[in-house]
Amino acid sequence: MHAHSWHKVYKRRNVERTEITTYEELTTRIPAKELSALLKVSSSLASTMDLIEVLQIAIESAAGLFGLNTGAIYTLENGDLYLGATTPPLPAQFPDELRLAKLCDHPHISKVVSTKAPVYLGDARLSPLSAAEKIVVDSRHLVSILYFPLLLKEDVIGVFIVGTTDQTRVFASNEIDLCYILSFQVSLAIANTLLYKKAQQSIVDLSRAYDATLEGWSRVLDMRDHVTEEHTHRVVELTVALASRMGIPAADLGHVRRGALMHDIGKMGIPDAVLQKPDVLSDAEQKIMQTHPEKARQIISQIDYLTPAVDIPYCHHEKWDGSGYPRRLKGEEIPLAARIFAVIDVFDALTSDRPYRKAWKKEEALAYIKDQSGKHFYPEAVKAFLEMLEG
Amino acid sequence: MHAHSWHKVYKRRNVERTEITTYEELTTRIPAKELSALLKVSSSLASTMDLIEVLQIAIESAAGLFGLNTGAIYTLENGDLYLGATTPPLPAQFPDELRLAKLCDHPHISKVVSTKAPVYLGDARLSPLSAAEKIVVDSRHLVSILYFPLLLKEDVIGVFIVGTTDQTRVFASNEIDLCYILSFQVSLAIANTLLYKKAQQSIVDLSRAYDATLEGWSRVLDMRDHVTEEHTHRVVELTVALASRMGIPAADLGHVRRGALMHDIGKMGIPDAVLQKPDVLSDAEQKIMQTHPEKARQIISQIDYLTPAVDIPYCHHEKWDGSGYPRRLKGEEIPLAARIFAVIDVFDALTSDRPYRKAWKKEEALAYIKDQSGKHFYPEAVKAFLEMLEG
Repeated sequence: MHAHSWHKVYKRRNVERTEITTYEELTTRIPAKELSALLKVSSSLASTMDLIEVLQIAIESAAGLFGLNTGAIYTLENGDLYLGATTPPLPAQFPDELRLAKLCDHPHISKVVSTKAPVYLGDARLSPLSAAEKIVVDSRHLVSILYFPLLLKEDVIGVFIVGTTDQTRVFASNEIDLCYILSFQVSLAIANTLLYKKAQQSIVDLSRAYDATLEGWSRVLDMRDHVTEEHTHRVVELTVALASRMGIPAADLGHVRRGALMHDIGKMGIPDAVLQKPDVLSDAEQKIMQTHPEKARQIISQIDYLTPAVDIPYCHHEKWDGSGYPRRLKGEEIPLAARIFAVIDVFDALTSDRPYRKAWKKEEALAYIKDQSGKHFYPEAVKAFLEMLEG
Repeated sequence: MHAHSWHKVYKRRNVERTEITTYEELTTRIPAKELSALLKVSSSLASTMDLIEVLQIAIESAAGLFGLNTGAIYTLENGDLYLGATTPPLPAQFPDELRLAKLCDHPHISKVVSTKAPVYLGDARLSPLSAAEKIVVDSRHLVSILYFPLLLKEDVIGVFIVGTTDQTRVFASNEIDLCYILSFQVSLAIANTLLYKKAQQSIVDLSRAYDATLEGWSRVLDMRDHVTEEHTHRVVELTVALASRMGIPAADLGHVRRGALMHDIGKMGIPDAVLQKPDVLSDAEQKIMQTHPEKARQIISQIDYLTPAVDIPYCHHEKWDGSGYPRRLKGEEIPLAARIFAVIDVFDALTSDRPYRKAWKKEEALAYIKDQSGKHFYPEAVKAFLEMLEG
C-alpha cells in the first residue's frame, strides 16, 4: 500500500457523510468513553506551562487513545523539525542535536506539513522511505504509521506520529475524528507554552541587557579612574563567591554583584583634579574624595531597581572597629555585603601596581589582611576569605 | 430553604454512591452531550492567555451548561474578592473599583472559600442575606443560586456563581459533577494566565528599571557637565515627539528615547579641564571635546541592547551640508534620528542660559534654526519642528 493523504481516504470512505466542518461538530460524533478520555487529556495539557512536558503528555495521550505504545511528536522551528517527545520516552541523556532534523529528509512529514492533512502508511515496511525515515522505521520496528498535523489556525506548527510495532492496523473514521480534536487541543497547549517561553526569554534577555549596561558604565568609570577592567572583574567575581560561601542567599547574589560592580560609582561626582592626582591627597582633597560613598547613595537611591544593591557602594569604606567613613559604622552595623567586599577590595588593591607604588606580594597582602582582622575587617570574612584562597 | 453546603446535600442525596474521588471518575458518569460541551469549553479556555477573556469564557460556559443566563465569577486577590466577569457581561465603562469587594461582606462566598465546597440557595429571596448580597440579589432578580469554588490543588482561587432569575431550580447530582469538572478546567486556565501575566509584569518592571537606570546615569553625567536635568528631559521628550511625527515607527521610538537620553554620554571620557572650562576652548581643546561622539560609540557598541540607540550619541554633531563631525557625513548619510535630534538640541541650547551668554529669545532661536535649514539642519526636520511648535 502506498502513502496517500489520509484526508482523501477519509472523504472517500465516508461519502454518505457531509464534509468535516467544525471542531464542535466533530465532538458530537464521538462516543462518551473517548470524550471522557479527551477531556482528561485536555486537563493534563493545561496542567503545565512547560513545552517539553506538554509534548510528552500529548504524545502519550495520542498513543494511549488508540492503545498503541509507539509515537513521536515534532515541532517546526524555522522550517526544521525538532523532535519534542516520544513514547516510550527518549533517554534522559539523548543528545539535543539529534532532536533536530531537516524537513526534506522526512518526505512523509513534509507532505503533512505542505498539505495540512494526515498521511497514513498501511505497512511502512512495504512503503518507499527516505534514508532517515528508514532508520526510524527499522529502529522502532514500525508497521502501520499515522502522521497527523498540529494545526494552529491555518499554520502547521508540528506533526504527531503514532504507529504499530507488530501488525498492520487501520484507523477508523471516528478515530480520525479523535485525532482532529486531540491535534486541536495539543496545538493550543503548545501555543500557550510557546507564548510563556517567549515571555520568560524576554525576562532573561532584559536581565542580561541590564547587567551588560551596568558593566559598560562601570568600564567607563574605570577608564576615568585609571582602574583596569580586570580589577573590577576580579573584585566582582571574588565578592560574589565569598558572599555565597558566607551564606548570603542565592536570591540576593544579584544585588551583591551589582553592588560590587558599582562600588566606586560615587567617584563620578569627584573632580578630575582630586580623582586623578598622582600625589598623596591633601586633607581638603581627602575630604572631597571621601564624599564618594554618599554620592553613590544619592545616585542609587533614585533608581528603585538598584536600591537593594546600595550597601557596597555606600558602606565599603566603613571599618569593623568604627574608624571608617562616611558614617563611622561599627561591627554588625555595617551591612554584611560591604564587610565582605572590603576584604576583597583591599586585597586586590594591594596586590595591584599603582602609579605611586609597586604591587605587594600575595603573602605580604595576606599578612596585612590577617593583621587587620577585627580592626579594619570583619573577622569571619577574613577567615572565610583565607579558606577560599586555600581551597 | 436555608443556605447549606451543597457538598453535604450532595452526599446525602447519593448515599448509594461512593464518595467523589477523582476528576477522572467523574467524567465517566457524564453523558456524551455534556462531555462534548465541556470539551468545547476546555478548548475555548485554552484559546487565550488573557485572564479577563478566560473569566468571561468561564462564566458564560458555566451559565450556558445549565441553560441559565445569569452568572458571575470572582477571583481571590490578597484575601479580597475581585469580580472578574459576569454574564450578561458588565458594561465596558464599569468602574474598576466596584469590582473589588470584601470577603466578609459576602458570607455565602466566604463559606465556599472556607469549606472549599459549593453552597446552594434554593430561594435567595427567602434566605438571610448580608447588605451587599441583598444588593446583588435584588439588582439581578436572583432566585436560586449556586456558589461553586475554583480549586487549584488545595487552594480556593475564586468562586463562580450561577443563578435563576424567574423561578427556583434544583441542580441534579450530574449537574454538580459537571460543575466539578468545569471548575477544575477553569482553575487550570486561570493559573496559566496568571503565570503569563506575572511574566509580562516582570518584563514591564525590568524595562522600567532599565530606563530608570539610564536616566539615573544621564543625571549624573549632567551634574558633571553642569547641564540641568530639565534640559535633558525636554530634549528627550521633544525628540521622541518629533521622531513620531516624522514617521519613525513606534517600535523604534524606545531606541530614539534612549539615544537622546545618552546623547552626551561620550563626555564621560572628556577631562574636567576641557568639559568644565568656562572660557572659549582652544583649538586643541576643541579637538578633545569633539572626540565625544566617537567615545560614545565605543561605550555603546559594547552593550548589545543599546546598539540600536547609537545613532544620536554618535551622529548628533554631523551637519546636513557635511561640515559636522566626527565623520563629516552629508545629507541622508546622517541617520534620521540624529538629524531630528540636532534641531531640537540646538534650539534648546540657544534658548537656555549659559555661563558665557544669556538665553536667546524663542523667536531669535527659531530664526536661526530656519536660517540653518539645508546648512546645519535637515530641511524636513526644521519644517516638522516648526509645525510641531505651532500646533
